[in-house]
Amino acid sequence: MSEQWLTSLITDDAQQGYELAIKLSRMGVKYTQPSDEVRGKLRPVYGEDANSLIASSQVIAINFQTVSAANNYWRK
Amino acid sequence: MSEQWLTSLITDDAQQGYELAIKLSRMGVKYTQPSDEVRGKLRPVYGEDANSLIASSQVIAINFQTVSAANNYWRK
Amino acid sequence: MSEQWLTSLITDDAQQGYELAIKLSRMGVKYTQPSDEVRGKLRPVYGEDANSLIASSQVIAINFQTVSAANNYWRK
Amino acid sequence: MSEQWLTSLITDDAQQGYELAIKLSRMGVKYTQPSDEVRGKLRPVYGEDANSLIASSQVIAINFQTVSAANNYWRK
Amino acid sequence: MSEQWLTSLITDDAQQGYELAIKLSRMGVKYTQPSDEVRGKLRPVYGEDANSLIASSQVIAINFQTVSAANNYWRK
Amino acid sequence: MSEQWLTSLITDDAQQGYELAIKLSRMGVKYTQPSDEVRGKLRPVYGEDANSLIASSQVIAINFQTVSAANNYWRK
Repeated sequence: MSEQWLTSLITDDAQQGYELAIKLSRMGVKYTQPSDEVRGKLRPVYGEDANSLIASSQVIAINFQTVSAANNYWRK
Repeated sequence: MSEQWLTSLITDDAQQGYELAIKLSRMGVKYTQPSDEVRGKLRPVYGEDANSLIASSQVIAINFQTVSAANNYWRK
Repeated sequence: MSEQWLTSLITDDAQQGYELAIKLSRMGVKYTQPSDEVRGKLRPVYGEDANSLIASSQVIAINFQTVSAANNYWRK
Repeated sequence: MSEQWLTSLITDDAQQGYELAIKLSRMGVKYTQPSDEVRGKLRPVYGEDANSLIASSQVIAINFQTVSAANNYWRK
Repeated sequence: MSEQWLTSLITDDAQQGYELAIKLSRMGVKYTQPSDEVRGKLRPVYGEDANSLIASSQVIAINFQTVSAANNYWRK
Repeated sequence: MSEQWLTSLITDDAQQGYELAIKLSRMGVKYTQPSDEVRGKLRPVYGEDANSLIASSQVIAINFQTVSAANNYWRK
């Protein structure tokens, strides 16, 4: 992937950090399955499967650990 | 999601930290499946499935690691 | 949940820390499925399923990481 | 469980630390399913299931992170 | 595997770090199944399975934690 | 297991560290299923199952976190 999509792990606040964690999680899927068409077809499948949603939240949680540590937990 | 739902990882005590971890875990599901209606339909499914409940507790545990570290484990 | 069930992550020794990790793991299930009756029905199911037991041990392991770090690994 | 089975996370070397991680992983199963008889019946099931074995190794890996950190990685 | 494929965990920026995490994740598969032919056959299977894609993203997330810590989160 | 198979987590470089993480992951399986014969029978099963391969890579990733931290990420 030549496109630049990630320049820094630093965000202004915790919520932006959480949203960056979501982006990181989605990019992991996108690198593994680059076709927008295939990913688009899968969306309604995992979006209505409770276990897939829990698994998605878990990937976000792992990436959020990384982003939170990078930002020193946005401690003031 | 434009709404502000997370302003800080700092909580008064460990139990509030655990409850924030639950909120983080739920938001991971909500960002992936924004429809209240669809999530509402899934609730009775995973709520009665032992493995889904264990998986949910795991996501909470991962987020609780983050929140606990942010709060320096609420050490006095 | 208004009841206070977690006041501190600090324990006297490693085994009490492990037992706190178990409590944290169970509370993750309880917050997700608050009905004692439903959880009671599920117990014999996951209690006799090897993969559910391994998954339960994994959640405990993750929470035990948190509790152990909080206690500085009970180093003397 | 009133019996004392864990007194310290400190071990003499890395291999003993790995073996303690195995013990921690097994105790997570034992606390969840205290019956020796039931666990005994499940052993041949997960022992011949590749995915259960991989999952078991994962729980050990998580506990080994904890034990390794406790021992400062047995650095000399 | 005698070939040298990993010389350092240090990368110029976060995106290169993420791409190294992807490489680490793929190498874990390759060491376990060294046959290019078998892995090639499996690609269309997991590439169209939402849960496999989420699981792949999770492995990347775990490796990205390691790479990010190694690079001190690319803080300036 | 009386045999000494792990003397240190310190390795010369990152790739050797990754290979140690693979060894740790395999030993977790071996301790759980000591029979070479049974493990040998399972190998072709998980070796051709995409999800098992992804799960194997995940265990390696977790152990690689430990080995990397032990080696201070092989920073010069």
